Amino acid sequence: VRTSRAEAFSDGVLAIAITLLILEVRVPAEVAEGALPRVLAHQWPSYASYAVSFAIIGIIWVNHHAMFDRVAEMTRGLLFLNLGLLMSVSFLPFPTALLADYVRGGANSHVAAAVYSANMTLIGLMFLALWAYLARNSRILAAGFTAEDARSSFRRTVWGPVLYGASIGLAYWNALACLVLYGALAVYFVLPYGVSRSGSRDD
Amino acid sequence: VRTSRAEAFSDGVLAIAITLLILEVRVPAEVAEGALPRVLAHQWPSYASYAVSFAIIGIIWVNHHAMFDRVAEMTRGLLFLNLGLLMSVSFLPFPTALLADYVRGGANSHVAAAVYSANMTLIGLMFLALWAYLARNSRILAAGFTAEDARSSFRRTVWGPVLYGASIGLAYWNALACLVLYGALAVYFVLPYGVSRSGSRDD
Amino acid sequence: VRTSRAEAFSDGVLAIAITLLILEVRVPAEVAEGALPRVLAHQWPSYASYAVSFAIIGIIWVNHHAMFDRVAEMTRGLLFLNLGLLMSVSFLPFPTALLADYVRGGANSHVAAAVYSANMTLIGLMFLALWAYLARNSRILAAGFTAEDARSSFRRTVWGPVLYGASIGLAYWNALACLVLYGALAVYFVLPYGVSRSGSRDD
Amino acid sequence: VRTSRAEAFSDGVLAIAITLLILEVRVPAEVAEGALPRVLAHQWPSYASYAVSFAIIGIIWVNHHAMFDRVAEMTRGLLFLNLGLLMSVSFLPFPTALLADYVRGGANSHVAAAVYSANMTLIGLMFLALWAYLARNSRILAAGFTAEDARSSFRRTVWGPVLYGASIGLAYWNALACLVLYGALAVYFVLPYGVSRSGSRDD
Repeated sequence: VRTSRAEAFSDGVLAIAITLLILEVRVPAEVAEGALPRVLAHQWPSYASYAVSFAIIGIIWVNHHAMFDRVAEMTRGLLFLNLGLLMSVSFLPFPTALLADYVRGGANSHVAAAVYSANMTLIGLMFLALWAYLARNSRILAAGFTAEDARSSFRRTVWGPVLYGASIGLAYWNALACLVLYGALAVYFVLPYGVSRSGSRDD
Repeated sequence: VRTSRAEAFSDGVLAIAITLLILEVRVPAEVAEGALPRVLAHQWPSYASYAVSFAIIGIIWVNHHAMFDRVAEMTRGLLFLNLGLLMSVSFLPFPTALLADYVRGGANSHVAAAVYSANMTLIGLMFLALWAYLARNSRILAAGFTAEDARSSFRRTVWGPVLYGASIGLAYWNALACLVLYGALAVYFVLPYGVSRSGSRDD
Repeated sequence: VRTSRAEAFSDGVLAIAITLLILEVRVPAEVAEGALPRVLAHQWPSYASYAVSFAIIGIIWVNHHAMFDRVAEMTRGLLFLNLGLLMSVSFLPFPTALLADYVRGGANSHVAAAVYSANMTLIGLMFLALWAYLARNSRILAAGFTAEDARSSFRRTVWGPVLYGASIGLAYWNALACLVLYGALAVYFVLPYGVSRSGSRDD
Repeated sequence: VRTSRAEAFSDGVLAIAITLLILEVRVPAEVAEGALPRVLAHQWPSYASYAVSFAIIGIIWVNHHAMFDRVAEMTRGLLFLNLGLLMSVSFLPFPTALLADYVRGGANSHVAAAVYSANMTLIGLMFLALWAYLARNSRILAAGFTAEDARSSFRRTVWGPVLYGASIGLAYWNALACLVLYGALAVYFVLPYGVSRSGSRDD
C-alpha cells in the first residue's frame, strides 16, 4: 500500500512539473502591427526547450515507473531518496526557462547551459543513489528481482550522469550544442534500445 | 497495472493543463476609478478562449479515456506516442493566451489564430497516430476490440486534423471566425452525435 | 470504473484549482527599508480572499464527493455537466484575485465583488443542473438512492445560487460585506448543519 | 473508501504545492553580457528556500501519510481539520518567496522570516489539532491504534509548533539564522530519529 501511495505522489509531482513547463513559454507583449510572426519565430528556443524538457521528464517518469515496479516495500530511506529525486526534477523548469532565455545570450549562454547540464547530472546521480540503495537493501525488492539486478541497473544508469556531467564542459564551448545534445539524448531514450538501458522490466 | 498508471499520469497532466488555463486570465492593473466594468468587458477574448480551451481539453480527456478503455496492455511505443499527445495538449495554454491577446490585433490576429489551429491539428494527428498504432498492434487491445474497430476509430478521427488543418487557412481570413469555429466544434462534440464519432465505447 | 476515473479527474482539477490560489498572493516588490510589515499588512484582502476561496473550493470538493458517492454509472450527459461544473470552479482564482485587488477600490470594488458573486451563482447553478439530471436519470443512481433523494438534494441546493445571486445586489452596496458574507457562508457550511443540507450521505 | 479519497485529494494538494515552489525561482531578466554567473549566484536565497520548503512539504507529506494510515473512517470534523491543514501548507509558497526576496533585506528581513515561522507554527498547530481530534474520537482509528497512541503522537508533535513559534523570536534577531534553522530541522526530520518522533508507524 505504501509503495502505491509513494508512486501516486511521485506521479503527481512529475505530472505537475511536466505541465508547468508551458508557463515558461510566454506570450509576447506589445508587438507592432504585423510583427507577430517574426516575434513568435524569434522565440524558438522557448518551444525547443519546452519540447526537450517535456520529453526528458516523460522519460524520467517511465524510468521511475520501471524502478518502482521492482520495489515491494517502502522504507524511510527510499522515501527520502525519492523526495531528493523529485526535488531535482521539479527544479528543471527553472534551467529550462533560463536556457530558453539565454541560449543566444553570448557569454551568458554558457552558464545557462551549464546550469541545465548540472541539473540533469544531479537527477542522474539521484537515480544512481536510488539503485545503489536498492542493491544494498535487496530485501525490499519485488519477487523475481535480486541485488544483482539492481547492481546491473546501477551500472546501466552510470553513463547518464557521466554524459550529462561532460555536457557541463560542452556548455562552455557552445550552449546551443547542449540543447541539441539534450534533444538527441531524449530521442535516443525514446527508441527501444535507449529505454532498455535504464532498467525497464522488458530488457 | 501499467495501463492504469499511464492513464492516471495522463489524467494528471490533462487535469493540470485544463486548470492552468485560468492563469492566462489576468486581473487588470491600475484601472481608473469606475473604469473596471469597461476594462473587464473589454477582455472578453480571455474568457472566451478560456471557455473554449477548457471545453476542448475536457473533450480530449473524454476521448483519451474512451481510447484507453480499449487498451489492455501498455507497450513502449504506446507510452511514447501518449507522451507526444500529452506534450501537444499541454502546449495549448500558450496558443490560448496568444489568441486571447491578439484576436483583435489586426494583422497579428491571423498568426495567433493559425498557431492555435496548428496546435489543434497536431493534437488531432497524435490521436490519429495512436489509433494507427493500435490498429497495427491489435494484440494489446482489450477483449472485444479488434484491429477493425481501431481502424474504424482511425477513420472517424481523420476529419479532426483535416478540419483543424483547414482552419489554419480560415485564420488568415478572420481570426475571430476561428475562435467561433473552435467553440462551435466543442459544442458539437459535447452533443451525443459528436462524441460518438471519436470512438467512445457506446457508439 | 468510469465513475471512479471521472471522480479522480474531478479531484485532480479541484486540488489544482485550490492550490493555484496561492499564486495570486504576491510578494511585494521594491519595499522601502523597514516598510515590509506595513506593506504586508496592507495586502490583507489577498490573505482573506485566499482563505475564503480555499474554504469554498474545499466545501465544493466535499459536496462533489457526496454527490458522486450516489452515482453508480457515468453517462455522457453527466460527464459534460460535470465538466461544466469544473469549468466554473476552475475560474474562481480569477474573481478571487480581482476581489483581493479591488475590494478597497472605490467604485471599482462593486464590479469586482459582483463578478465573484456571479461566479459563485454559476457554480451553484451547475450543482442544481447536476441534481436535476440525476433526478431525471435515476437509473444511474447508486443502490439505495432514488429519484426522490435527488429531488430532495436539488431542493436543498436551490438556496445556494439564490443566496449568491442575491449577493450580486449586495456587491453594489458594499464589496467588503460580500467578502464577509462569503467567509460566513464558508464557516456555516463547515458546521455540521451546513454541510448536511447539500446532500452528504449522513444527513 | 472515503478515507482513500481524502488521502488522494490531500496527496494531490501537497504534490501541487511542492511543485509550485519552483515558480518562485525566477529567471533574471536583462542581464549584462557575462554577468549571468554573478546574478545567478546572487539569488542563492531562492534556491535555498526552494530546497528547504520542498524538504519541509515532503516531510509533511510523510507525516500526513503516517497519520492517515492510522485512520479507518472519515468524519466531517476530520475532513475539515484536514482542509485547514492543507490550507496552511498550500500557503507556504508565499512565505518561501517572501523569505527568498527579503532574507538579505535589512530591517525587512525580520518580518519575512517571522511570516515563514508563523506559517510553520500554524501548520504544526493544525497537526496538533488533528491528533487531538483523533485522540478524542478514537473509534475512527484503524485496528491496532488506541486513543493513547494518538495522545502519544500528540505529545511528540507538540514540540514542532513550540520550536517554530520560538523561531518567530529568532526571526527578529537574524532572518538568515531562521533559514538555516528550517534547513537543519528538515535534515533532522529526514534522519530516522527525527521522523519517528512525528508518528510514523515504525517507531
